[in-house]
Amino acid sequence: MKLVTLLFAFTALKAFAMTPLPKTPPVPADNKMTPAKINLGKILYFEPRLSLNGTISCNTCHNVMLGGEDNRSVSVGVNGQRGGRSAPTVWNAAFHSVQFWDGRALSLEEQAVGPITNPIEMGMPNFDVVIERLSSIEEYVDMFKKAFPKDKKPISKVNIGKAIATFERTLISGNSPFDLYKSGKKSAMSKSAIRGMKLVEETGCLACHSGSNFSGDNKMGEGNFQTFPVFAENEYVKKYDFLKDNGRYETTQKEEDKHIWRVPTWRNIALTAPYFHNGSVATLEEAVKVMAKVQLDKDLNDKDTADIVSFLESLTGKFPKIDMPRLPSTPKRSILDVK
Amino acid sequence: MKLVTLLFAFTALKAFAMTPLPKTPPVPADNKMTPAKINLGKILYFEPRLSLNGTISCNTCHNVMLGGEDNRSVSVGVNGQRGGRSAPTVWNAAFHSVQFWDGRALSLEEQAVGPITNPIEMGMPNFDVVIERLSSIEEYVDMFKKAFPKDKKPISKVNIGKAIATFERTLISGNSPFDLYKSGKKSAMSKSAIRGMKLVEETGCLACHSGSNFSGDNKMGEGNFQTFPVFAENEYVKKYDFLKDNGRYETTQKEEDKHIWRVPTWRNIALTAPYFHNGSVATLEEAVKVMAKVQLDKDLNDKDTADIVSFLESLTGKFPKIDMPRLPSTPKRSILDVK
Repeated sequence: MKLVTLLFAFTALKAFAMTPLPKTPPVPADNKMTPAKINLGKILYFEPRLSLNGTISCNTCHNVMLGGEDNRSVSVGVNGQRGGRSAPTVWNAAFHSVQFWDGRALSLEEQAVGPITNPIEMGMPNFDVVIERLSSIEEYVDMFKKAFPKDKKPISKVNIGKAIATFERTLISGNSPFDLYKSGKKSAMSKSAIRGMKLVEETGCLACHSGSNFSGDNKMGEGNFQTFPVFAENEYVKKYDFLKDNGRYETTQKEEDKHIWRVPTWRNIALTAPYFHNGSVATLEEAVKVMAKVQLDKDLNDKDTADIVSFLESLTGKFPKIDMPRLPSTPKRSILDVK
Repeated sequence: MKLVTLLFAFTALKAFAMTPLPKTPPVPADNKMTPAKINLGKILYFEPRLSLNGTISCNTCHNVMLGGEDNRSVSVGVNGQRGGRSAPTVWNAAFHSVQFWDGRALSLEEQAVGPITNPIEMGMPNFDVVIERLSSIEEYVDMFKKAFPKDKKPISKVNIGKAIATFERTLISGNSPFDLYKSGKKSAMSKSAIRGMKLVEETGCLACHSGSNFSGDNKMGEGNFQTFPVFAENEYVKKYDFLKDNGRYETTQKEEDKHIWRVPTWRNIALTAPYFHNGSVATLEEAVKVMAKVQLDKDLNDKDTADIVSFLESLTGKFPKIDMPRLPSTPKRSILDVK
């Protein structure tokens, strides 16, 4: 065997690997995890006053008490507004190499600040107003100082992102039946799930959904981008209106980015219905059939579909306990509108 | 002194008492506290799927991470709808003898189910739909069985109310500086707060705001109802539009109930701005001046106002730690709309 063939085989093997979830995710060098930052980020994550009218927090759409999102097709932002894309799960988001459906944020830090000033999500007019509001709450002034002791202006857009991202890096749900199986506990997965595990490999799903997060083990910021749908001439694409949203093109305006998307995780996917970027597919069974058809042009039978679904269910992890934070008070006044 | 005078003096004394918050609230004979009920009630309290589109839970408007409400003038319900009254705090609501601003619910059990089918709050069409939805979630079926083991149909409107009310009876915030002061720790309150404590007595505020919850120590279901505003010929009543809402009359349609309201608690009042039934008054200072004028026809000076505010701040309690619940999942599907 020639060296080049060997190298190719090794690369292919790596690309197709399914591995247990590490206990800790990658952490950027300029945003180390500290208890003060985790604490602040957690409070900010549940803070509805980060939205224009005090009604929407990060957790509203990315609900950690559920599967890290809201089980809605698309979320509802300030004043009942709806966007076009379904909220991705926050659980294990730290293992995604890029963020948002179209991967336009290269880090959790960058992602975390996006929705705050998105007019249909949290609706704040700009970060000057966000910073002014947080600065008017004494406890936040203290917490930002503790979390960013070297900064002259601790309350900043960058630090809001850093704190929230730091908390999000604690939202890891390992110890799924798959993880236990991989660590030697063979009884953790059902026969059907084990068959499904082989099927996702044979069918070709792992070409994209590989690694510990089943979203490709790419370097942070690099992204694992793929065309969706690959095969557009079938009933599903029309039925679920998959071509309406241009994917990454909407951000980059580059022709080659039309219908390019980030490969999303499979972890906890049984908890995050409805499915796809537009939340148009109601059940996991249907989602599996749709993916096989529109990405690989394969028609899965009911038996194989059921086994793959069993496998995907074995990726539901254990969720760490979270103490409910107390949010800083604004004694004797509200910082929200009084009308 | 005649017996009748003695009795009157005793009654007056009792009515004007300010007492520490008991560790536990009254519990109705037909809804004993059990761990299974508390657990279920807590999960239901944070359950957005109790609302039509899965966006509003009890906690959305009565946020236990804050002062038990949302610091908004009026809350925002499903699809961005707004009502006319400000969300009352859930903290220590168990010590209120009746519920809602107009006291139309005679128990927490009755109150807890109200917003679920209120079209501008959680918006469910009726309880058949609520029960059908909860019954479709396996974990809820189990939890209701455990919480109500003797019931043939454990998932019912009555039991939803009982479970949520049971959780709410754990939301007690005692150990405020006032409570500590009353139990002998005289340094717990500032001089200004102690002056304020005398002033609320001298000014006449305690005629209504007495007892351990400062809302009158009435029997459960009895209610402490008062006219508001008593003195309508002043700038405040017009400025804050206090006469627009007819209070209890809106429910009973009885002439004598016009502008009759339940006396609300003072506990944690520093955390629940903006103030009054319509949330029209921005600060606690202004709220104190307004109350003295419209209820007692007294013009408080700035010094006395500041002392009363200090006293009211001494009623901010310690909040118990709450573990964030995990909400039951609906594996492989969502029970919400997929459009």
